[in-house]
Amino acid sequence: MAQSLTGNIENMIGWTKVPLGQAGPLLVNNKNYDLSLATTEGALVASVNRGCKATRLSGGIKVLVENVGATRGPVFRVKGIDEGKKLINWVKDNFKLVQKAAEATSQHLKLVDFTSTMAGKNAWLRFRFNTGEAMGMNMVTIATQKIVELIEDKLKIKCLALSGNFCVDKKANWLNFIEGRGKKVWAEAMIKRIIVKDVLKTTPEKIIEVVKSKQWLGSIMSGSMGANGHFANIAAALFLATGQDMAHVVEASLGVTIAELQSGSASRRATCSHLPGEARGCARRSAWPAPDLYFSVYLPDLMVGMVGGGTRLPSQQQVLKMLGNPSAIELAGIIGGSVLAGELSLTAALASGDLAKAHQKLGRPKPTRSDLLGNKSPIRSDLNGARYD
Amino acid sequence: MAQSLTGNIENMIGWTKVPLGQAGPLLVNNKNYDLSLATTEGALVASVNRGCKATRLSGGIKVLVENVGATRGPVFRVKGIDEGKKLINWVKDNFKLVQKAAEATSQHLKLVDFTSTMAGKNAWLRFRFNTGEAMGMNMVTIATQKIVELIEDKLKIKCLALSGNFCVDKKANWLNFIEGRGKKVWAEAMIKRIIVKDVLKTTPEKIIEVVKSKQWLGSIMSGSMGANGHFANIAAALFLATGQDMAHVVEASLGVTIAELQSGSASRRATCSHLPGEARGCARRSAWPAPDLYFSVYLPDLMVGMVGGGTRLPSQQQVLKMLGNPSAIELAGIIGGSVLAGELSLTAALASGDLAKAHQKLGRPKPTRSDLLGNKSPIRSDLNGARYD
Amino acid sequence: MAQSLTGNIENMIGWTKVPLGQAGPLLVNNKNYDLSLATTEGALVASVNRGCKATRLSGGIKVLVENVGATRGPVFRVKGIDEGKKLINWVKDNFKLVQKAAEATSQHLKLVDFTSTMAGKNAWLRFRFNTGEAMGMNMVTIATQKIVELIEDKLKIKCLALSGNFCVDKKANWLNFIEGRGKKVWAEAMIKRIIVKDVLKTTPEKIIEVVKSKQWLGSIMSGSMGANGHFANIAAALFLATGQDMAHVVEASLGVTIAELQSGSASRRATCSHLPGEARGCARRSAWPAPDLYFSVYLPDLMVGMVGGGTRLPSQQQVLKMLGNPSAIELAGIIGGSVLAGELSLTAALASGDLAKAHQKLGRPKPTRSDLLGNKSPIRSDLNGARYD
Amino acid sequence: MAQSLTGNIENMIGWTKVPLGQAGPLLVNNKNYDLSLATTEGALVASVNRGCKATRLSGGIKVLVENVGATRGPVFRVKGIDEGKKLINWVKDNFKLVQKAAEATSQHLKLVDFTSTMAGKNAWLRFRFNTGEAMGMNMVTIATQKIVELIEDKLKIKCLALSGNFCVDKKANWLNFIEGRGKKVWAEAMIKRIIVKDVLKTTPEKIIEVVKSKQWLGSIMSGSMGANGHFANIAAALFLATGQDMAHVVEASLGVTIAELQSGSASRRATCSHLPGEARGCARRSAWPAPDLYFSVYLPDLMVGMVGGGTRLPSQQQVLKMLGNPSAIELAGIIGGSVLAGELSLTAALASGDLAKAHQKLGRPKPTRSDLLGNKSPIRSDLNGARYD
Repeated sequence: MAQSLTGNIENMIGWTKVPLGQAGPLLVNNKNYDLSLATTEGALVASVNRGCKATRLSGGIKVLVENVGATRGPVFRVKGIDEGKKLINWVKDNFKLVQKAAEATSQHLKLVDFTSTMAGKNAWLRFRFNTGEAMGMNMVTIATQKIVELIEDKLKIKCLALSGNFCVDKKANWLNFIEGRGKKVWAEAMIKRIIVKDVLKTTPEKIIEVVKSKQWLGSIMSGSMGANGHFANIAAALFLATGQDMAHVVEASLGVTIAELQSGSASRRATCSHLPGEARGCARRSAWPAPDLYFSVYLPDLMVGMVGGGTRLPSQQQVLKMLGNPSAIELAGIIGGSVLAGELSLTAALASGDLAKAHQKLGRPKPTRSDLLGNKSPIRSDLNGARYD
Repeated sequence: MAQSLTGNIENMIGWTKVPLGQAGPLLVNNKNYDLSLATTEGALVASVNRGCKATRLSGGIKVLVENVGATRGPVFRVKGIDEGKKLINWVKDNFKLVQKAAEATSQHLKLVDFTSTMAGKNAWLRFRFNTGEAMGMNMVTIATQKIVELIEDKLKIKCLALSGNFCVDKKANWLNFIEGRGKKVWAEAMIKRIIVKDVLKTTPEKIIEVVKSKQWLGSIMSGSMGANGHFANIAAALFLATGQDMAHVVEASLGVTIAELQSGSASRRATCSHLPGEARGCARRSAWPAPDLYFSVYLPDLMVGMVGGGTRLPSQQQVLKMLGNPSAIELAGIIGGSVLAGELSLTAALASGDLAKAHQKLGRPKPTRSDLLGNKSPIRSDLNGARYD
Repeated sequence: MAQSLTGNIENMIGWTKVPLGQAGPLLVNNKNYDLSLATTEGALVASVNRGCKATRLSGGIKVLVENVGATRGPVFRVKGIDEGKKLINWVKDNFKLVQKAAEATSQHLKLVDFTSTMAGKNAWLRFRFNTGEAMGMNMVTIATQKIVELIEDKLKIKCLALSGNFCVDKKANWLNFIEGRGKKVWAEAMIKRIIVKDVLKTTPEKIIEVVKSKQWLGSIMSGSMGANGHFANIAAALFLATGQDMAHVVEASLGVTIAELQSGSASRRATCSHLPGEARGCARRSAWPAPDLYFSVYLPDLMVGMVGGGTRLPSQQQVLKMLGNPSAIELAGIIGGSVLAGELSLTAALASGDLAKAHQKLGRPKPTRSDLLGNKSPIRSDLNGARYD
Repeated sequence: MAQSLTGNIENMIGWTKVPLGQAGPLLVNNKNYDLSLATTEGALVASVNRGCKATRLSGGIKVLVENVGATRGPVFRVKGIDEGKKLINWVKDNFKLVQKAAEATSQHLKLVDFTSTMAGKNAWLRFRFNTGEAMGMNMVTIATQKIVELIEDKLKIKCLALSGNFCVDKKANWLNFIEGRGKKVWAEAMIKRIIVKDVLKTTPEKIIEVVKSKQWLGSIMSGSMGANGHFANIAAALFLATGQDMAHVVEASLGVTIAELQSGSASRRATCSHLPGEARGCARRSAWPAPDLYFSVYLPDLMVGMVGGGTRLPSQQQVLKMLGNPSAIELAGIIGGSVLAGELSLTAALASGDLAKAHQKLGRPKPTRSDLLGNKSPIRSDLNGARYD
């Protein structure tokens, strides 16, 4: 194992251990996933678990993933506007050559395209790569280094920094939000009103009101980037469990939550037949059905991979195996779906006024004969978890 | 140990293990700290280590910490402008009463003050608490719940969400950036030119040029919040090692890096006498000294604590013990100093063009008889680590 | 008149003339105002006029103005963190002295308080002044100059720039958005459903849907500062007509629009009796009333004055006189109310799909015997104006 | 004239008159322009004039304009992710058809391309048009209306708002900053050190220090969009004088200022021969020349036109004629160059500490036999004007 850590750490002195809790199954695109979350914050696993249950009982979550790719944005020192334009035009005109140089560094990497900007004597190029199953920052750094060498050689224009904060890696920024980075993920679910009531202890209307006043208007008033409740919590726990780069949680924290009334009917008819035994009280539904809940999240900037980095470590490997060793795109979809589940459950807890209660119950240590420990305890799907952001 | 996990996780099924590497010592405010970083990204520990060495050889890092406090920002449903103003005025006029209700929930907590905003039928209050040694979000959630109950009782104004995204917790936002949250940390160091050359393999001028084109202008062009290279990397590794909430890495990623020429002289005279044996070549200094490097970081939003959350877990406890079980304020200073060290080293690697090289050497696993493993390997201070953001 | 232009312009060669249109009356806080808007964009006056009518027929607009004050934020060159902190503490400890120096420059000016920030060798102070009836930037510049001289004299700390972009003047920025600048204005109106239908040609529900998808979510997705439709249009036309500084339109463009259903009833009973003759069709109201529309705007950063700058020019004086020579605070309220009227009308035009139509009718010149010209043409309150942002 | 105002205003009651001052000539891309600025703020014309002189004496300003185009971003109501994707794909697959519908509305308009985003049941399309000599928002609104009708007809997907704040018109936003809108303009000038001293009363080093601490770091600390001193001032005065839409000043206020040392020599040799009689003291230059000043501005979002809107009014026509009736692209370049001149002069005034002094001299009315009035007064190029932002 010694060599397998060479790429992960230097001066190794031991291991940091973080408890791993199980939630789910999460039903995404008609497939069930057993989620494992590594966290030290009480109530988070329970809350995600509750969101999994509510969405699963309602037919599951639909997810769409767009593979944007990893980006690297070097900054060059040009003599002024003309040379900046010349640099940009050269890359445009010689893109095949640039691709060849970049792609020679790895067979897992494709240079897709580039964008640019300039100000004064600074010119930035942002190269976008398809990195296959890897998150890919190592790959694209090496590939961009080759591009830079090609440019320096051909144009005699000096690169000031291989990363010019036009990538943008591990910082909250609008470029990534608007253009996307890594994977863009959209997830959505229609939650039956009865499920909202029984599992989430509130109503669609109250959830929508919280999303409006907190996620949307609260974010607008506080100058937040995006508009969500706690994407970062779920992303952090899954990133840690699956061996992702924890600094990329910053990018995963960006995104938007949407809640609306769903007055369709076709989808509602399937309610009681789905996953029998879990949904109680379907018979109570009236003839003139009140609308259900539409809940959706959008994550424009999810940097994840299935190979490289922490994914090759033992405990992380096990978690990935429990997820069925998905592709990187599928993994992004699972994370997007989990974020939806966790966001839904938190929003419901706020709507029902249960936030502080959940915290008091699950967020503080107290002497108890805990049945939560032990390897593989039974999943308590009915745990009324809630989680603050 | 079962009960000690009750506040940390539900449905526990095991542990996620992340390798822990050692860097340092980090010399902050005249005290040495052995840093432990939990990460899966090759080169990060080596890079922070290099930054520790460069700053230590130059007399260390000065750190200033301001205890801003934890905040919680509920949103209320008011009838309109008048009632919103009434709510805000009532809290102002009855602040003693509000304090009493809040502080009754915990003896470790002080309500410091509050700010407010409103839009249409929404009014937000942002309560700021001193939470002692705890990061404190659990505490302030419970305390704010009590305030909310008091307001609902006295004014018959309904709280829509205990957290109204005016806190702002675990999201990138300007409110925290401008007002601060948790701890505000400033760190600075004067790095001798000879150290920049010998340890960081570049010059003050080149580092300054990178900071200007990447951290400042690159951030401005990409719409980044703040202006830094990779605060998130160092924060993530230390947060994980010391049991902090990993979603707070989002807030820790905010901040600004400054680099300038330092043409002072008094401070420079101490160069060679400090930490003898480590600095090579002091004698080479010319009679008319070229300026040194001033390097500084500012982190407006560091949510950390010494008690509660993951800090009570065994491996995390050990790391905190190795740091000397500092106070929460001291811990924030250590993190700020480490961020400076890591930021300096990355910037130097970009300036010297070593980024891709460092990655190729340390960022990918390769079969090798690694002397890095084994419990407590000797710290290789001369490791020319570099780290991309 | 020659001397009256000395403070306004150099190298004067003539006048730029912009047509002035009339809208209103605007009913704000139970008072009617005849608005004059200087614009060259067809449909804007008509659209504001329509908004005036809709709100007037519904009982008018309520406005709340908070006098935040003008700010100036110099940046100082300090030796590092310690000196930065020393500077800030000195100003805190000697605030009376600072006030005295500042206020000696003008009898119309009060120094209220200050905030600060620092990064590396840069420290910023943001002084906030009450400038009475003036917008006040000239005053606060001179006063801040005196403060700077005092600081430079007492502390031997050099000011790098009297304006350090921490003011922040005439730029879009979060500091002003969050802290406010000039005047903060909130405006709200309850628009009867029947008025929405008759005057605005749409429904409360459709207006709310547009506000949600355009002003809120569209702004979130595009990284906009605040969330509104076209505050800048109305602010620009009124700033120009009343002699304000046109570059302050940038700050006035910041803000938030809110629309919600209003299911009260007391307020609705007064509908038909108010302003008899204008509201048609009140009798049509059903016994079980559908909810009305609540519409509100918030402008955190309105820099306006009644004296100084362009307010002393002849045509601008006339417009101010037509408004009843209000106080600066009242003027801010009038502008806030007008912004509400214009925002409401645009949103309605989008909701009803009339935007392009309005443009085609009013936005392009065509040969016509225009009854719009002539001094003081009758106000055509029924003009179905609409305006794109 | 009555009919020519039909497209500009309704309910016209008169004219607002703003004094027009002359500055320049501005030397841009080897051509001289007589600038006219409409403003009511003392010192602005003088300050721009001084910037014109400093740049003109140094060989003038180089400008590059990119014609991005006008954009309109409607928002559609979709059933969810799938339908959103379907909408976007349909437009992609039927772009020729969409172009045909759009371009049928005007022969002056070309649909260039589109981008998109979506969240929940909302999908936004941002159409980008080449609008020839017009600023073009009227045109693109009508054209987008046709596209919307086509989409509604073909896909039965409803447009919620023709402008979905994804345009983004007249608001400060990152989408425009990053993608550009209207015209992108870069301007740069090399200012001889001797000119900086004689005309601007300061040094290149001091100007660079102000740009760093104010424009860059001050903007970063205050959460400003972009990093400049007072683009809005110059844009507002030129927009008003040339009949542009004053609400577009908000977009013009976005941008970045760059200042650096310029240690070239070839460009410097031409100094004294250029514009003989104006540059005093060239002979004083030493054999080992100290570096000159490189000064540059970038404006990503300049919405201007030569036809339509206020450009057809008499006084505005005259100003455009004095500029030589340039093309819209040339006009954008002139504005970009003027912004550079004004920004340079302000920054110099801050660097030399003259800001408050300039204000006291030019910013307040005082009884004087003003030689500034009268049609076409002699331009006082040596006016040591300065202007605060």
